[in-house]
Amino acid sequence: MDVFKGRIGIIGAGALGAYYGARLFRAGHDVHFLMRRDYGIVKARGLEVRSIDGDFHIHPPVWPDAGAMGNCDLVIVGLKSTDNAVLLALLGPVAGPETIVLTLQNGLGNEDAVVRALAGAAADADATALPDAARVLGGAAFLCSNRVAPGVISHTEYGFIRMAEFAGPAGPRTRAIAALFESAGISCECLDSLGHVRWAKLVWNVPFNGLGVAAGRGDAAAVLADDTLCGVARRLMDEVVAAARGNGVELPAGLPDDLMAKTRTMGAYRSSMQIDYEEGRPLEVEAILGEPVRRARRAGVAVPTMEILYGIVRRLDAHARSKQ
Amino acid sequence: MDVFKGRIGIIGAGALGAYYGARLFRAGHDVHFLMRRDYGIVKARGLEVRSIDGDFHIHPPVWPDAGAMGNCDLVIVGLKSTDNAVLLALLGPVAGPETIVLTLQNGLGNEDAVVRALAGAAADADATALPDAARVLGGAAFLCSNRVAPGVISHTEYGFIRMAEFAGPAGPRTRAIAALFESAGISCECLDSLGHVRWAKLVWNVPFNGLGVAAGRGDAAAVLADDTLCGVARRLMDEVVAAARGNGVELPAGLPDDLMAKTRTMGAYRSSMQIDYEEGRPLEVEAILGEPVRRARRAGVAVPTMEILYGIVRRLDAHARSKQ
Repeated sequence: MDVFKGRIGIIGAGALGAYYGARLFRAGHDVHFLMRRDYGIVKARGLEVRSIDGDFHIHPPVWPDAGAMGNCDLVIVGLKSTDNAVLLALLGPVAGPETIVLTLQNGLGNEDAVVRALAGAAADADATALPDAARVLGGAAFLCSNRVAPGVISHTEYGFIRMAEFAGPAGPRTRAIAALFESAGISCECLDSLGHVRWAKLVWNVPFNGLGVAAGRGDAAAVLADDTLCGVARRLMDEVVAAARGNGVELPAGLPDDLMAKTRTMGAYRSSMQIDYEEGRPLEVEAILGEPVRRARRAGVAVPTMEILYGIVRRLDAHARSKQ
Repeated sequence: MDVFKGRIGIIGAGALGAYYGARLFRAGHDVHFLMRRDYGIVKARGLEVRSIDGDFHIHPPVWPDAGAMGNCDLVIVGLKSTDNAVLLALLGPVAGPETIVLTLQNGLGNEDAVVRALAGAAADADATALPDAARVLGGAAFLCSNRVAPGVISHTEYGFIRMAEFAGPAGPRTRAIAALFESAGISCECLDSLGHVRWAKLVWNVPFNGLGVAAGRGDAAAVLADDTLCGVARRLMDEVVAAARGNGVELPAGLPDDLMAKTRTMGAYRSSMQIDYEEGRPLEVEAILGEPVRRARRAGVAVPTMEILYGIVRRLDAHARSKQ
């Protein structure tokens, strides 16, 4: 299997982007980091990764703005989806006409936003109809990592990636990018359907991110310990599966039960959205709840439980913003 | 129409019980108030009512405990349903074998709790099978009132009561109690079905009490201003109507639309549950959300939106309690 070769740029080098970038850099690839908050400290002291797979410390090329970083062959997007408004400004200087962009963001609609940014298209343009769609990939990262201090990433569990092309089945280029991750010790699976990648992850994310926020400190153990909320989480999973089916994605029948069983092993795990909420950060409410609800609606699939959860979480997010 | 005559006891003389009791006392009836917090001040200075229908000040008989108050012919219960555990202790000394008890509490299950307290029956006894069921009435109070200071009640809107017997159609005794309220200028309608009284009020209470708590400061105007939450409120109303139907209560087809239209005139109205939540008090979550969900389930009616709202609000309530 060919391994992708070229200049790699990490945009949104937070807990996720910095972790994957650091692993790729350590494996000998030409990785460049665009950093805002942590530019100074990483420039001076490097990037430290404390990982269950072994700690390491690297001194990679780091850039304070996209213009300085310059053109890359592959751009990996690790931004929060709430920052997608800056995609155009960040991708413009680093993406030439051949650049491939892989977004590892959560939820639905990020690939569309990347395509539109590459094309300079309006926010309501149909991304699937734009030629740039052919060079955009989406991946779901199954990773527990946190930025525990400036320039320091803690990696506590998992790390594998499931990836697909936005516009069609996985071709050789996508397989070469999967091989790139594998070369750095990161398990990376290629699928032929991005919908499958995205909706499968939402089966867990919708209930446990949503309830993590809506049900006051609703970590996984708290939800599972409450009969009503546990039943609600399971029903949310069924609604996501139905919404996926309405969007042409048939998920494995046993997926919800498997995920409930897996969640029982996770203890008081806090979802990324719960952590964001408790730390006063904007929530990825549109990517994780809003866009799935809209796509279900457009497909004529009733998702009443998802819809109230979306309404509640969006309002809690807006209310938290209004207090800042 | 005969007007009920006899000794009347008000149990739970908060914003609701004290208001109705004061109106009855002022109309010349023999009304006694059981007061905990406000006993001393009302004993010394009387009870002040500031009402849109005219302010007044009375010096009624007030008692510090149920034993001192003694036997009554009619007991009106204005306790929060969250205090139902003390019903037995409060009703025991004031209710003889002929005493009629009218509960003006919110939600479902309060009449059952009153019957069980009168009968000294266990918490899981079927209230409908107990002979005391025949002397219990339930009423829905459409009233906006607040205790604004010790011994001072502010009445800002409405006040009418819709009432029915727990065990059957309204008989002469119930009509005499309705006439009692009417004699004090309080509009009081007798229905032949308590289910109708209770479920009809829940059509508004479920969405606007529930979302008032779950959707961060979700007053009526905030819910209506949000497309998603407004649709969710309307769907919750439909679920309550379906749950009522499953429980043998056919509500008027136009009720949800009428209530939505009425809500649009209410401005930033805060439901009682929202106020309780924001002031750190226990929520009537079981009477307003839990019991309706359980009765829907038992009737085989799917109420997915009510169920998640119940789960979220119950958890928020438990979480707020745990911090106190």
